[in-house]
Amino acid sequence: MSQERIIQVERDILSKNDGFAAENRAYFAANGIFALNFVSSPGSGKTSLLVRTIGDLKERLPIGVVEGDQQTSNDAARIRETGAPAIQVNTGKGCHLDAHMVGHAVEELAPAKNSVLFIENVGNLVCPAAFDLGEAHKVVLLSVTEGEDKPLKYPDMFAAADLMILNKADLLPHLDFDVGACIANALRVNPRLQTLVVSARTGEGMPAFYSWLEANAAMAVTRALAKAG
Amino acid sequence: MSQERIIQVERDILSKNDGFAAENRAYFAANGIFALNFVSSPGSGKTSLLVRTIGDLKERLPIGVVEGDQQTSNDAARIRETGAPAIQVNTGKGCHLDAHMVGHAVEELAPAKNSVLFIENVGNLVCPAAFDLGEAHKVVLLSVTEGEDKPLKYPDMFAAADLMILNKADLLPHLDFDVGACIANALRVNPRLQTLVVSARTGEGMPAFYSWLEANAAMAVTRALAKAG
Repeated sequence: MSQERIIQVERDILSKNDGFAAENRAYFAANGIFALNFVSSPGSGKTSLLVRTIGDLKERLPIGVVEGDQQTSNDAARIRETGAPAIQVNTGKGCHLDAHMVGHAVEELAPAKNSVLFIENVGNLVCPAAFDLGEAHKVVLLSVTEGEDKPLKYPDMFAAADLMILNKADLLPHLDFDVGACIANALRVNPRLQTLVVSARTGEGMPAFYSWLEANAAMAVTRALAKAG
Repeated sequence: MSQERIIQVERDILSKNDGFAAENRAYFAANGIFALNFVSSPGSGKTSLLVRTIGDLKERLPIGVVEGDQQTSNDAARIRETGAPAIQVNTGKGCHLDAHMVGHAVEELAPAKNSVLFIENVGNLVCPAAFDLGEAHKVVLLSVTEGEDKPLKYPDMFAAADLMILNKADLLPHLDFDVGACIANALRVNPRLQTLVVSARTGEGMPAFYSWLEANAAMAVTRALAKAG
């Protein structure tokens, strides 16, 4: 294919995706569902973060999960052990979730009104940045074992996210990772980015994430009620 | 005065203030000036933070300062030692800067086009929250010696701010202060708040603040050019 033709195909794919994303967003808005799209490199701890969050919040916040992976349904199984409903989407050769896949998964999941929906994307710091799934926010995880330079090397993802969670903070004493320098790099590509430092393993810093989550979920419910009323 | 009359007077004061704030904001916007309104309790380290920031950035970013205090011009003198221009505003009995005072101070300061303007408010976690000065953002400082509960006890200020800087991080090893719990409290009153942890004394964490500052100041310049062009 010519370069021009490739660009045209990419545009068509993204514009089709945006249409499905708008449908998802309208459905979430009408039902007070607060949807987050979790993106990161493989192994930065997305599933562990979700498992701990669900364990700590399930008594006060209904949470459903859409799990994206190229293969296996291991992650959805880990989520279900917490008692939360989870749907696994296998993308096969695909390197990201798209809004159409998420729409079907949500249909199947049938999340409760006024609930929280976690969408765990395929581990990939590049492609998922371009695909709107209809989420309220992209949340980018970065583990402190990955290096301070990642926001500069993968700027699209950090520019597309509204919240950056630095995970594996329990390892900081054993590493040369400079939290301040990493946040500085991230703010250089996205001056409006919010940042939190946590360990999904020990639970340190997680209360700040829970505050952020609950306050934003409450606003989604308020907006849905205002729209209906 | 009756309760009703007091409320009426307060409304008049705030609406007058908002008029002056709009004038300041228009002037800043037209001239690419990125104005920040620094608010905090007394002694949380606003002036030290500004002094270090100016020292570190003055070669690449023109910075002017409006200093607010009830009495003395000590702070403006400290700022001027860095080489940056500073105007002291004494509020006398006043517990906050208002937009009219700031407008006059800015006239006198005559900040350069495409520069940064730091407005250091009177040390007070209550009243300055209600007074828009025409700034791009309120930045609330909280020192880690003040306790994690301050965002819950003074919610208006933390709700009005866009950035919270936790200062005096060098003292953390000697304190029982829980950074995560403090950020959780702040996000409870303002889910969109950005947070940074720094020590203006040792400089730790300051690069993240500089990134935030430079990226936002660059956007203010871009917007002014787009408006003029």
